[in-house]
Amino acid sequence: MGATQKMTIFKLCILAGAALVGTMSVAAQAMTPAQTMLGDAPSVPKNIVIMIGDGMGPAYTSAYRYYKDNPDTQEIEQTVFDRLLVGTSSTYPARVSGYVTDSAAAATALATGVKSYNGAISVDINKQTIPTIMEKAKALGLATGVAVTSQINHATPAAFLSHNESRSNYDALAKSYLTTDTDVMLGGGKKYFPVSLIEKFQAKGYQYLSDFNQLDSIKQGKVIGLFANVQLPWAIDDNDKNKLSKMTAKALELLSQHDKGFVLLIEGSLIDWAGHNNDIVTAMGEMEEFANAIEVVEQYIRNNDNTLMLVTADHNTGGLSIGANGEYSWNTSIIRGVQASPDFIANDALIHDDWLARVSLNLGFEPNEDEASQLARARMQGKEVMTTSIKHLIDSRSNTGWTTGGHTGVDVQVFATGPAASLFAGYQDNTDIANKLISLLPKAKSKSQSNK
Amino acid sequence: MGATQKMTIFKLCILAGAALVGTMSVAAQAMTPAQTMLGDAPSVPKNIVIMIGDGMGPAYTSAYRYYKDNPDTQEIEQTVFDRLLVGTSSTYPARVSGYVTDSAAAATALATGVKSYNGAISVDINKQTIPTIMEKAKALGLATGVAVTSQINHATPAAFLSHNESRSNYDALAKSYLTTDTDVMLGGGKKYFPVSLIEKFQAKGYQYLSDFNQLDSIKQGKVIGLFANVQLPWAIDDNDKNKLSKMTAKALELLSQHDKGFVLLIEGSLIDWAGHNNDIVTAMGEMEEFANAIEVVEQYIRNNDNTLMLVTADHNTGGLSIGANGEYSWNTSIIRGVQASPDFIANDALIHDDWLARVSLNLGFEPNEDEASQLARARMQGKEVMTTSIKHLIDSRSNTGWTTGGHTGVDVQVFATGPAASLFAGYQDNTDIANKLISLLPKAKSKSQSNK
Repeated sequence: MGATQKMTIFKLCILAGAALVGTMSVAAQAMTPAQTMLGDAPSVPKNIVIMIGDGMGPAYTSAYRYYKDNPDTQEIEQTVFDRLLVGTSSTYPARVSGYVTDSAAAATALATGVKSYNGAISVDINKQTIPTIMEKAKALGLATGVAVTSQINHATPAAFLSHNESRSNYDALAKSYLTTDTDVMLGGGKKYFPVSLIEKFQAKGYQYLSDFNQLDSIKQGKVIGLFANVQLPWAIDDNDKNKLSKMTAKALELLSQHDKGFVLLIEGSLIDWAGHNNDIVTAMGEMEEFANAIEVVEQYIRNNDNTLMLVTADHNTGGLSIGANGEYSWNTSIIRGVQASPDFIANDALIHDDWLARVSLNLGFEPNEDEASQLARARMQGKEVMTTSIKHLIDSRSNTGWTTGGHTGVDVQVFATGPAASLFAGYQDNTDIANKLISLLPKAKSKSQSNK
Repeated sequence: MGATQKMTIFKLCILAGAALVGTMSVAAQAMTPAQTMLGDAPSVPKNIVIMIGDGMGPAYTSAYRYYKDNPDTQEIEQTVFDRLLVGTSSTYPARVSGYVTDSAAAATALATGVKSYNGAISVDINKQTIPTIMEKAKALGLATGVAVTSQINHATPAAFLSHNESRSNYDALAKSYLTTDTDVMLGGGKKYFPVSLIEKFQAKGYQYLSDFNQLDSIKQGKVIGLFANVQLPWAIDDNDKNKLSKMTAKALELLSQHDKGFVLLIEGSLIDWAGHNNDIVTAMGEMEEFANAIEVVEQYIRNNDNTLMLVTADHNTGGLSIGANGEYSWNTSIIRGVQASPDFIANDALIHDDWLARVSLNLGFEPNEDEASQLARARMQGKEVMTTSIKHLIDSRSNTGWTTGGHTGVDVQVFATGPAASLFAGYQDNTDIANKLISLLPKAKSKSQSNK
């Protein structure tokens, strides 16, 4: 089936979808008879919130359930992901790049509905620019925003806001944001935005924030907030946790002031970074950061039933597995007990003479004799080897498995709630997600309504 | 939410589900306007076909899509799994066994709606028997059957048909089948069914088949067919392929003759066995065997719209990943090119002097100098090391990753079509699947209809 046919089919589905809205997305959960009826909720959204857990393959959301499980209760508690799951998505890039995507090609697919090569920022395989959902939204008078935990010009937000033949052209991407008219940009990336560039944003009416504490003070208008040189701190090491939730809430507050509606991209960017590092402790911290931000949007939708939230991952990272080494167990008490990222624990161990006592305290358990001598040898070899040794110790004790420092091609999950959430039920490709979202923008909505 | 509340909720959902039947399961695929309307299909099934891909975690179905992809076309073809996906399921066993299930506890959950310890065959954590969906169906006058590629008394079919405190009690499980009144039993397991036991089945009116070629000759009545000493041959090595499809078609033909309806369990048992062996070539062969059997049932349902098919996995095996070693590629041409299982290739290499030429022919590529000397060293160490060496070579060339010889705790996928398929949309636990299926048996159906 060609892309055009698919578009036609799901435009037809919008009408059918309207009849199902509010039922399908809750069909697998607690459903009251009232909920199964068509309520007063709109059938197409005014606002769209796209949330991407970078690298968050299916093992991450399952792992998060067990990581959050209270072992003292009989039941295993459901997570926000369990509540909102509606389908799955394939992630493969354009054929030229095989079956395993990078974040740039995946974000291009999710932002434009077109597959491209790994590395592409919303350009096609011939390096021609492809219009993004954010550009289409802007052209229709909607407001737009991004809030991420990486630098704001990293692959995922970049593919939603800009175009470039390579994700690596960070400086060009940063500069290009000047002409996007994006209303809210929150995340890291000071390194790529020199004072001269920031002044140009200010000349265009943007408020610039360089400190996270300033976020509260902004009550309206355009804003660019850069809260770290590159990415934000690991959530597990951050005293001021839930930064993504706070950025999400602020973005919703600011964008809600636009009468014509908005499209907002939220990314839990560092799930992927922790996955590349094969670091389960930090990955679970980033999953919590992302899950909490989803709950902020979920709560917003409870109060604003004109808003659709679509949550997915761009790909799977690391080949994480829950259980490894032939053992039928995943020991979450080990993972939950660790008090800081392996990065932090290694750094701390390198600069203290009583390092083993400090490592034990940070790990939440005392390494046995063998483990302690492995750590001692690793410590002699410096930061990188020490970090790896600490990660291996946690993996070995918890039976956590990894297959790669890169990405894998397993399908990811799709979660949705709000108007037209039912459109995303079942299996779909990542380009289908974009095409469905684009078809839900006001123009597409009018077109579909004119079919009535 | 407790189990009782969940039951009440989804009994309510049956009514709601009826209004959605025929729409939700096709919502994400090609949908014509006619299909989106409620057709004449019944809202509750007369017949239920439960299909389990043992060990078939999410990476297996994604991998199968790329394994089956025709690289000469622009598009990546969808599979039967893509067509039928409706949701996901968690697989964790009773708390006493942690978060990673074995096949026995998972089959117990799917057959009874109750979680138990790893190793349990439809007994609870206190080793008390729990009624299975097959027993409930029998009590209601329905016919029942199993068709599997393992021995018929292996954990999955055993938990549907019988009870035992341990999956390892194969002889006791085989004997116990005498009193189950199961109408159709097809698979392997001669080793566990001595002549004296077979004679008792025959005395009860069963036709006994010891050769696969006899299957065609059976046109009605009860049957027990054991076509291998233990499990059936690997599909990739079997000249008579699609045995599972043929057993499935025969089971449907025989069980359809029962006026009150039937419950049939089909298992692609050896996906799991290949996964335990970390053997991607054999695993993809078993996936094809299972996918083809699903298509047999899908076609049956096109002609018999009173039949529900529910497809899932009991758990994930091996920690398979599509891509490994930091490479952003999964080289399916290597996997597709292999002509036989690594088991077969190793055996063949051990008994021939021109082994390297034969290995090259079987692999579909010529090992380079390094690879050839690794194989030569492995060959000196016998069958097991040689098999492992061949698997490593295929994994390394294709970038296939594994984390364990056991199981992992990632959620599995749920696929469904036919009456009440919509009940299985979204996330659910494996016990929810069983409870929903049990609620769809005639007794539960009458109860729900009386609410109208």
